[in-house]
Amino acid sequence: MLPPEELERRLRAIGAERYHVHHPFHHLLHGGKLSKPQVQAWALNRYYYQASIPAKDAAVLGRLPTPELRREWRRRIVDHDGDGVKPGGVERWLKLTDGLGLERGYVTSLAGLLPGTRYAVDAYVQFVKERSLLEAVASSLTEMFSPDIISQRVSGMLRNYDFVSEETLAYFTPRLTQAPQDVAFALAYVKQHARTREQQEQVMAALRFKCDLLWAQLDALHHAYVEPGHIPPGAWRPGEAAA
Amino acid sequence: MLPPEELERRLRAIGAERYHVHHPFHHLLHGGKLSKPQVQAWALNRYYYQASIPAKDAAVLGRLPTPELRREWRRRIVDHDGDGVKPGGVERWLKLTDGLGLERGYVTSLAGLLPGTRYAVDAYVQFVKERSLLEAVASSLTEMFSPDIISQRVSGMLRNYDFVSEETLAYFTPRLTQAPQDVAFALAYVKQHARTREQQEQVMAALRFKCDLLWAQLDALHHAYVEPGHIPPGAWRPGEAAA
Repeated sequence: MLPPEELERRLRAIGAERYHVHHPFHHLLHGGKLSKPQVQAWALNRYYYQASIPAKDAAVLGRLPTPELRREWRRRIVDHDGDGVKPGGVERWLKLTDGLGLERGYVTSLAGLLPGTRYAVDAYVQFVKERSLLEAVASSLTEMFSPDIISQRVSGMLRNYDFVSEETLAYFTPRLTQAPQDVAFALAYVKQHARTREQQEQVMAALRFKCDLLWAQLDALHHAYVEPGHIPPGAWRPGEAAA
Repeated sequence: MLPPEELERRLRAIGAERYHVHHPFHHLLHGGKLSKPQVQAWALNRYYYQASIPAKDAAVLGRLPTPELRREWRRRIVDHDGDGVKPGGVERWLKLTDGLGLERGYVTSLAGLLPGTRYAVDAYVQFVKERSLLEAVASSLTEMFSPDIISQRVSGMLRNYDFVSEETLAYFTPRLTQAPQDVAFALAYVKQHARTREQQEQVMAALRFKCDLLWAQLDALHHAYVEPGHIPPGAWRPGEAAA
């Protein structure tokens, strides 16, 4: 069995190799190399990921054994769904699609979603339902790496695109404090509850799975909206659903 | 409600628009425009689809209400898994990956699978478990269009690649007779059991879903192995796992 600090070191190494901060689409996005329709396609597709996070977290919540653990995980759902007064992450993501000029009813209908986005996101919710609680918690650990990608994305997008503003990108600001709080809990949890080498391997595999899933979402976007002529039948086309 | 013949006409129109016979990767494949590693990537990834079909069919089988219906559907599992003497479709697909020089243990380990392939295939099995029996049966109707794609594929590949032979492509021959038999049953079933306009719409949506899923598998392949520099972390790389 690995010492817990060595497990953490290996988890960070997985992020260094596989987190989508290294994906070409991310570089194009924050580097100002995308057109407005390409940024719209990203926001439209990623909406489905944002909107599915509470379903994923509810699946974890329902499997946690104590009120203390459930209260900790419930906070994630509050962060995404809001409290009825302060908007949550899902609502803030819709401010982004609004700001990019996409019709809100179209975004939430999921009508123009890339099939690849749908399958990847659904695979995440399914993973969390089917695998052990340890693996379900471990799959959230990509948040270890998210403050970096968020700050690159926000500063790069504000600098490079005149069609985004701090208000449009309001989704991201609270994530900079929420993610580290989530990670502190989840990382301590997996370090404590992975009690065999096999369980430690499961934790690492769960993080690899999650990195792959974020990567696959950008692959689908890149293929459809950066490579010319590859938008699949039925998916959103530039100009469609303008607000 | 549509007359059953009109439902069938609309189902055929969905295939005419969305079946993966129209995907650029298919054109490259049968047109002889792919390198051997690209054909290997196709066979390696599609193995997971082939290997998952019996799981999909078992899910349908378990939901059918009568011995007659179950016997009809059981034939599909025999076609894919064989009878212990005559090899089934899964084994014949492995003859293809063998013939292409891929190490069999590597292929069946799924280690180098594209995440996009995995999510798309898993989405199919999940669909068949979660949706109505009518939708589950309807999602098999892409076989209406498969004899065309198979004959294009086989004749094009034999003509254009010196690394394939009739023996390597033995998977496909029995499919030319099995698929029409499957379709005759499934098409009659949906025409008979879709008893409201809403159910007819569900049948059409199920076929669209299935077309999208086959398309998304070729998108993932095209992005990773035709566009240079886009193989995701952890996926098979040309030269790996040579037999």
